Amino acid sequence: MIRFECDYAEGAHPLILEKLAKTNFEQTPGYSMDEYCKRAASHIKKLCADNNAAVHFFVGGTIANLTVIASILKPYQGVISADTGHINVHETGAIEATGHKVLTIPSDDGKITAAQVKEIYLEHVENPEPEHIVAPGMVYISHPTENGTIYTKKELTELSELCRKYGLPLFMDGARLGYALAAPGNDLEISDIAKLCDVFYIGATKIGALFGEALVITTDSFKKDFRYYIKQRGALLAKGRLLGIQFDVLLENGLYMDIAKNAIDCAMLIKAACEKKGFKFLYDSPTNQQFPILPNKYAEELSKNFAFHQWKKVDDSHVAVRFCTSWCTTKENTDSLVSAIESL
Amino acid sequence: MIRFECDYAEGAHPLILEKLAKTNFEQTPGYSMDEYCKRAASHIKKLCADNNAAVHFFVGGTIANLTVIASILKPYQGVISADTGHINVHETGAIEATGHKVLTIPSDDGKITAAQVKEIYLEHVENPEPEHIVAPGMVYISHPTENGTIYTKKELTELSELCRKYGLPLFMDGARLGYALAAPGNDLEISDIAKLCDVFYIGATKIGALFGEALVITTDSFKKDFRYYIKQRGALLAKGRLLGIQFDVLLENGLYMDIAKNAIDCAMLIKAACEKKGFKFLYDSPTNQQFPILPNKYAEELSKNFAFHQWKKVDDSHVAVRFCTSWCTTKENTDSLVSAIESL
Amino acid sequence: MIRFECDYAEGAHPLILEKLAKTNFEQTPGYSMDEYCKRAASHIKKLCADNNAAVHFFVGGTIANLTVIASILKPYQGVISADTGHINVHETGAIEATGHKVLTIPSDDGKITAAQVKEIYLEHVENPEPEHIVAPGMVYISHPTENGTIYTKKELTELSELCRKYGLPLFMDGARLGYALAAPGNDLEISDIAKLCDVFYIGATKIGALFGEALVITTDSFKKDFRYYIKQRGALLAKGRLLGIQFDVLLENGLYMDIAKNAIDCAMLIKAACEKKGFKFLYDSPTNQQFPILPNKYAEELSKNFAFHQWKKVDDSHVAVRFCTSWCTTKENTDSLVSAIESL
Amino acid sequence: MIRFECDYAEGAHPLILEKLAKTNFEQTPGYSMDEYCKRAASHIKKLCADNNAAVHFFVGGTIANLTVIASILKPYQGVISADTGHINVHETGAIEATGHKVLTIPSDDGKITAAQVKEIYLEHVENPEPEHIVAPGMVYISHPTENGTIYTKKELTELSELCRKYGLPLFMDGARLGYALAAPGNDLEISDIAKLCDVFYIGATKIGALFGEALVITTDSFKKDFRYYIKQRGALLAKGRLLGIQFDVLLENGLYMDIAKNAIDCAMLIKAACEKKGFKFLYDSPTNQQFPILPNKYAEELSKNFAFHQWKKVDDSHVAVRFCTSWCTTKENTDSLVSAIESL
Repeated sequence: MIRFECDYAEGAHPLILEKLAKTNFEQTPGYSMDEYCKRAASHIKKLCADNNAAVHFFVGGTIANLTVIASILKPYQGVISADTGHINVHETGAIEATGHKVLTIPSDDGKITAAQVKEIYLEHVENPEPEHIVAPGMVYISHPTENGTIYTKKELTELSELCRKYGLPLFMDGARLGYALAAPGNDLEISDIAKLCDVFYIGATKIGALFGEALVITTDSFKKDFRYYIKQRGALLAKGRLLGIQFDVLLENGLYMDIAKNAIDCAMLIKAACEKKGFKFLYDSPTNQQFPILPNKYAEELSKNFAFHQWKKVDDSHVAVRFCTSWCTTKENTDSLVSAIESL
Repeated sequence: MIRFECDYAEGAHPLILEKLAKTNFEQTPGYSMDEYCKRAASHIKKLCADNNAAVHFFVGGTIANLTVIASILKPYQGVISADTGHINVHETGAIEATGHKVLTIPSDDGKITAAQVKEIYLEHVENPEPEHIVAPGMVYISHPTENGTIYTKKELTELSELCRKYGLPLFMDGARLGYALAAPGNDLEISDIAKLCDVFYIGATKIGALFGEALVITTDSFKKDFRYYIKQRGALLAKGRLLGIQFDVLLENGLYMDIAKNAIDCAMLIKAACEKKGFKFLYDSPTNQQFPILPNKYAEELSKNFAFHQWKKVDDSHVAVRFCTSWCTTKENTDSLVSAIESL
Repeated sequence: MIRFECDYAEGAHPLILEKLAKTNFEQTPGYSMDEYCKRAASHIKKLCADNNAAVHFFVGGTIANLTVIASILKPYQGVISADTGHINVHETGAIEATGHKVLTIPSDDGKITAAQVKEIYLEHVENPEPEHIVAPGMVYISHPTENGTIYTKKELTELSELCRKYGLPLFMDGARLGYALAAPGNDLEISDIAKLCDVFYIGATKIGALFGEALVITTDSFKKDFRYYIKQRGALLAKGRLLGIQFDVLLENGLYMDIAKNAIDCAMLIKAACEKKGFKFLYDSPTNQQFPILPNKYAEELSKNFAFHQWKKVDDSHVAVRFCTSWCTTKENTDSLVSAIESL
Repeated sequence: MIRFECDYAEGAHPLILEKLAKTNFEQTPGYSMDEYCKRAASHIKKLCADNNAAVHFFVGGTIANLTVIASILKPYQGVISADTGHINVHETGAIEATGHKVLTIPSDDGKITAAQVKEIYLEHVENPEPEHIVAPGMVYISHPTENGTIYTKKELTELSELCRKYGLPLFMDGARLGYALAAPGNDLEISDIAKLCDVFYIGATKIGALFGEALVITTDSFKKDFRYYIKQRGALLAKGRLLGIQFDVLLENGLYMDIAKNAIDCAMLIKAACEKKGFKFLYDSPTNQQFPILPNKYAEELSKNFAFHQWKKVDDSHVAVRFCTSWCTTKENTDSLVSAIESL
């Protein structure tokens, strides 16, 4: 069985394991106050072209999301998100558990637009009795989205400008950020994102690390006392250097982007094979997740040798599936899948 | 500078790193649904002599504490703890952030007694208007305590019997559990703890692992739907196998106890050296944290070559310090400290 | 200006004020432990045909809703509600502030069906990884709904049976319950509701009282320690007898139903006038809220002498308005509105 | 049985009931947007000598406390309070339920000092790892305290200056404020309190109203969006005018202070009688709660004809009791108690 099920099935890039072994008996202060975290933060500030950015490290996405959102919102505010957003559907109510409503915008492909945010915001402030209703307090997007789609620079700029006009902080969940940056058609750099968002993270759990999301706060007002929030949510790793070391390895010489590119290359081969067979796609994804719509019998046949998700029933005879590549998907396994698709 | 500051300054036992490297490219299901977590759980059930125990893995102590406590208490209940308890003073209000009060019992050495719990419980239920007051809903202890002290089997049994009589679940924070089990005078085995407590954890962040606390739930009513709580708090590690692998290595052949023993051996040498010099101790600790009371000038002199915590000013001329050994403290460094103490 | 804006614009039925004055200098225990609360509870138990029902009094609907819901749900559970439900759109996130998600079901008229609840429930339990998703934990309905519609006995029975099958407690927000009971076509009695729901309340803020909602808990497991929840949320009125006195007056001799009937009679006259003019209605409401769809110019004309809500723009030339009658709407004012409608 | 048990045993001052009856059928907007609330707010702003003060009305003290505190604190902050403070011991964890820790200061008489606040504040900021500990975020005091004691102008000024120096908002729970203002030795006026505190309330539930606490916010940053907080906690009374009318009656012509004075006059007679008998007092209270220490047999004898609280066992033969007078305690009943004390 060859697996295209998810992008967190393996461990870490070998260079990370090497560095962990090499530094194993060094004694460092705990809680990310060590030199490795400083080095990693320094790489990130450079990528962001922002020396004043605050950088913090998290073990995973859900805890990063809830910590950030609970730190920004006032008690009566909610967070605007696509209805498909990870915080809305796949975190067991983690945001609500911190006291906040997720204010949803309908989305087919996982993205939301400036116009949609404008509408939900104006609907609130134009209500004659707004205090009876949750106030929109920030905007959450994921990039790439849960459906593999990405924002263009134009789209993100429009969203950012609108958010700033209305005083809505913009937070980007970048659990798979590298895959967006490496996608064909991408025109955003990390420094753009740093400018356009107030807070975002560079995800590595799904791109080469054992675990780790590097949170970047570029807007001053959200930097203050942020370590309190991390500790209160149980998110302050005792041996914080483990996070610093991993991001140091990934970002020092561009490893992060190199291995993200591998996932995209593999995904594009699979995409091309599907297109050649005339399959349609559920979402127009240029990233590591591909959602072709297959006749049921083809899906069944492929599942004999390949593991992948049955994403959504499309009609009685078709199913959308998800093929997910990753930083360590091999050319060999990709070729096997491509051949199998071609032979359907 | 030789460091006796804490027990989480280094990485992990080399056997753990080896196993991580060896298994690195295996593909496993995420979220602790893999075979390594099952193996680790199996070792733990055996240690607990309880085949029905539920075992879950956490990355750290604070998030384990808040997840467990929020899962057990009803909204109007609080958790009883020593006023020195980690949840009361060192977790940035993590418990309160889940909606619950910490009901404190005064403690000199970090321990609480059955009699104290009885008093606080009866004071509540005998109040004519109890509904105006937070109801005691469970008991939290740490073992060893934050002050290095440990419970005897008799003490823990009394506490457990009282808790069961009054319907108060008993939860043991075992962030340093191995050091209690290896302490001179200890008469508790893991299987005793499993019987006497409703929930407890075997801590490894401070005993040989990169990170990891293995939570054990022995009482059926607290097992149900526990994974929802883990996910909601952001505590479900994507690559859960990292936790399973570490506990598998630590528990398969007794490595956990062996390396815990090393910390105790070193601590006892330091303790003996202090006693020989006639120093008193702030707490009577048989574990890896030692709290001798030194004349200020001695503390200052030692601090030239050794790093340790100034714990508490005792009087104008004396200070209690903390020497903390760990699973990887070397005999050589211990001997250096012992010599330095002897030469004071 | 004659007002049909809402059903809480005036004070209380004069008999209530009389009784408050008459009992003013009696000394009674606080916090609803007095004889008046007991009398009121006794009337309610009789209406419910349930001697074991637990009865508690609240000052308003939002605080009753949040207290009940937070008392029933486990931390990882959410409450199922129509998307139009008061808890979802008009309580400033009060439910989320207690840590819980509102799981919405799309609804045109404010009602939800057993089939819809079944679907949302099964979707959850059939998910292979349900612990990543908020678990449905109870069902909230309002009766009448925010749109004036009511459940039939058959509909409520189906909902109740489904809820019991799946272990979902059923909670009815009865802020306007009297108006449902007095509606033409109603076939539910309070005793039916008591049997079919686990918790519900008889609202009086909008039906004759200065304020007050009488909560009834019929299912044993939700009765325990309920006063703790009331106090914790700040909902325990010091002079609780004010609530007891009001419900005693309203329920002793059927006053509650008599004055609810008045609102319905007035509403039906207005409804008939609208129908005669050929106006359509946004919702098919048999209760005190009527939502006719008027040409814009008619709405404008009426608004010169009558106050009412512009509910929703229907198209460029039509608007749905809300005429709201109440326990103290006069025949005279109703006739004025009816004449005005007839003369459009 | 003559009752000196509490100050909320009766209804309201007759002038309030009269006004409620007289205005009963007026139609007003809901949620305190009516003219009576404006009038009441206007009286209060005058008393505060602050035209920009924000005034909001609450039904009771607990919900006022939790709403205010949750609106001011950031998620990682706690509220400093005397350990005897109402929010710490008598509100079923209402503050913790909003996510915040109560940081207690030991107090014998219910008061806290500037020096104590300074100590707890500095202990936090001087900690080398403050982010592991709940940050002090505001100060809560009650005036009079739960023990009947009051702050002098000097004491409150010192507290206020310290709070402002350290950026700690000062919040005064004035559930019994009138009784402090009418106490012998009081040198604080409402306008002083308005200047020295950031937020406080004028309590009327215990001083003449059916219910009602008038919250005053004098510091601009806490005024914004406050109605959202009120609604979210379920504290926005539908018929808000009931609160406006009551405070209008109480404050228009000084009725509030007149009836507060009555309680003090009665209390002073009881106090004098106790002093004449040589009884000591548990607290030095100049307000409507008196805590004399009686021989057990005297307490028992008095309890045959008078109802009062057994407050605290002092030793095997003595008990401190509480005699509580109120705005409607009669001269006649007071004389009866005084005579009974004299005849012991």
